[in-house]
Amino acid sequence: MSVHSSRSLRLQQDAADPAAARGGSIAAVAQRAGVSVATVSRVLNGHANVRAATRERVLAEIEASGYRVNELARNLRTAESRLLLTMVPDFGNPFYAEIVRGIDGVARQHGFFLLLCDTGADAGRERSYFDLLRRHRADGAICLDPATVQHALVAESTALPWVACCEFDPDVGVPYVGIDNYRAAHDAVRHLIARGRRRVALINSDEHYLYARQRRDGWRDALREAGIEARGAWRVNVNCLDYDAGAQAAAALMQLPAGEAPDAIFAVSDTLAVGVVNGLRGAGRRVPGDVAVVGFDDIALAARIDPPLTTIAQPMRELGETAARLLLRRFADPCASVPGVLLPHRLVVRESG
Amino acid sequence: MSVHSSRSLRLQQDAADPAAARGGSIAAVAQRAGVSVATVSRVLNGHANVRAATRERVLAEIEASGYRVNELARNLRTAESRLLLTMVPDFGNPFYAEIVRGIDGVARQHGFFLLLCDTGADAGRERSYFDLLRRHRADGAICLDPATVQHALVAESTALPWVACCEFDPDVGVPYVGIDNYRAAHDAVRHLIARGRRRVALINSDEHYLYARQRRDGWRDALREAGIEARGAWRVNVNCLDYDAGAQAAAALMQLPAGEAPDAIFAVSDTLAVGVVNGLRGAGRRVPGDVAVVGFDDIALAARIDPPLTTIAQPMRELGETAARLLLRRFADPCASVPGVLLPHRLVVRESG
Repeated sequence: MSVHSSRSLRLQQDAADPAAARGGSIAAVAQRAGVSVATVSRVLNGHANVRAATRERVLAEIEASGYRVNELARNLRTAESRLLLTMVPDFGNPFYAEIVRGIDGVARQHGFFLLLCDTGADAGRERSYFDLLRRHRADGAICLDPATVQHALVAESTALPWVACCEFDPDVGVPYVGIDNYRAAHDAVRHLIARGRRRVALINSDEHYLYARQRRDGWRDALREAGIEARGAWRVNVNCLDYDAGAQAAAALMQLPAGEAPDAIFAVSDTLAVGVVNGLRGAGRRVPGDVAVVGFDDIALAARIDPPLTTIAQPMRELGETAARLLLRRFADPCASVPGVLLPHRLVVRESG
Repeated sequence: MSVHSSRSLRLQQDAADPAAARGGSIAAVAQRAGVSVATVSRVLNGHANVRAATRERVLAEIEASGYRVNELARNLRTAESRLLLTMVPDFGNPFYAEIVRGIDGVARQHGFFLLLCDTGADAGRERSYFDLLRRHRADGAICLDPATVQHALVAESTALPWVACCEFDPDVGVPYVGIDNYRAAHDAVRHLIARGRRRVALINSDEHYLYARQRRDGWRDALREAGIEARGAWRVNVNCLDYDAGAQAAAALMQLPAGEAPDAIFAVSDTLAVGVVNGLRGAGRRVPGDVAVVGFDDIALAARIDPPLTTIAQPMRELGETAARLLLRRFADPCASVPGVLLPHRLVVRESG
């Protein structure tokens, strides 16, 4: 085919085994230039974020190696899968759709494809997706699953290139991005109390989620600081965050005796809160007249229901973008300690509470 | 490592090149047994849908070949990517989330992972995802993109294993599943006319979508059959199906002079229709008193807004499941002509119109 056919053949064979390819020419260039394999990759792919001096040193080493830039680049492309796993517990929840959009935007900018997986928050399914990472079928992963599910993987996989998004345990040594869930819940409940509500119910996720435990604590402490006991009857946990779960939980809360029934409901997702508004309407209660409602996330729908929903806004797109950037940074320098990142939340006051 | 280490090594080398692996032992077994490679795969994976006589013939040939079943199965697993691409134009739309759930369920049952891609209905992005298929990085694809985008690919890719879902052109020779969009729109508009509405507006997608052109025709013909001219002023096309697009289109329609302004709006997605209800409220119109509203899709939210939305239900989960099954059937027998499938739609009458 070309004068380089024999070398091409050898490179192709290398390329079939990523470890061999990396251990071969590219790794050698990286070592001689005193940079990481990822830096060589950035130079070959023409990325802007390489200092001029570094770029020249890498190019000089490539020239000295006798390889052609194109061959190395091809080798590199084949050796990397260019796939990023993203594991979400439920892709029907619009909250995740917006985060995934953020991840996808950054991934695409850097030439990666997104492999989106719905784990159903199931540890077994999550493990089988992680196998794609272990077998180098994907380059890295972003996990939005419950901390308990993540814990099951941590012992075997802290060395793999993955980051935790939204749901994380700062103690496990995996880079993460999220918000301060305790503080956010505290803000929501304090707002309801400031509006004169005293009996604030909490409709919460399954407490396998660390965020659910943190938001529960924020709810409890905000009540306590106002001299209100957080009654067990006001606390409902649901396994699913869809509209119906919210409507049913609200209807159940309205069964409590008058004087004990909540005059406010804080739901830990907007999908639940939309269902709550619907369930209260079905039970003949006015929102916010009889019962104030505050949600969480600020999905697109929140501002567009009747009454528009008061909620805690999470910077969803930015959470996804940051998770993707943390992962790319981990590729560039696998040994660097990547810090956890907390992004700010915001109370958005509309008409429901 | 084991007594089979040298053979394992050879199989591993084969496995690195899917063509070589398929051209090797498995293909040879398939040929001698007079079945497809996919049938051998099903036997190795213990699938139920292989006739007993066929299974025995395949197992006999495997025994004669001197290979062990485990080795062949491993080889096969490595030779196949076990990834199914699913290309959606917008994964923020809950309509797609429900279809994707259907695809994912069937894919997982058959040991495949879903590779979900957001193309933004862009032909360039779709082409780059198709490249994963061409380079055997994925086993097959399900495409939900506009027919115009699909057309751009058809010339080069009818031979690749992909199917069209929801959006399809029966003439291009690619297996598809969808609904009868003309008939569905016709049903929706006839319903509004039967309720006494005369000035029925259409808020439609970009007409790059074949479904958008078919629904437009159904709207126009239903009006015409009732002796009503389908006025240009009643037809709005939007580039995006989100809530705001619906609200803005409704507000614009309400600017028409009295007597010309619509007394009903048919929106081609529920996300648009939710926005329409919101936009009408903002313009001081009652739904359905002043303006009736009918949506399309029957997403989970449709029944849960105020007033609950009358809509055309698409069997979303079943559309996804059928698409996945058509694709699996194509794997099993690449040469069989796979028919197009139309699933039934249903008018769901609630309170908005």
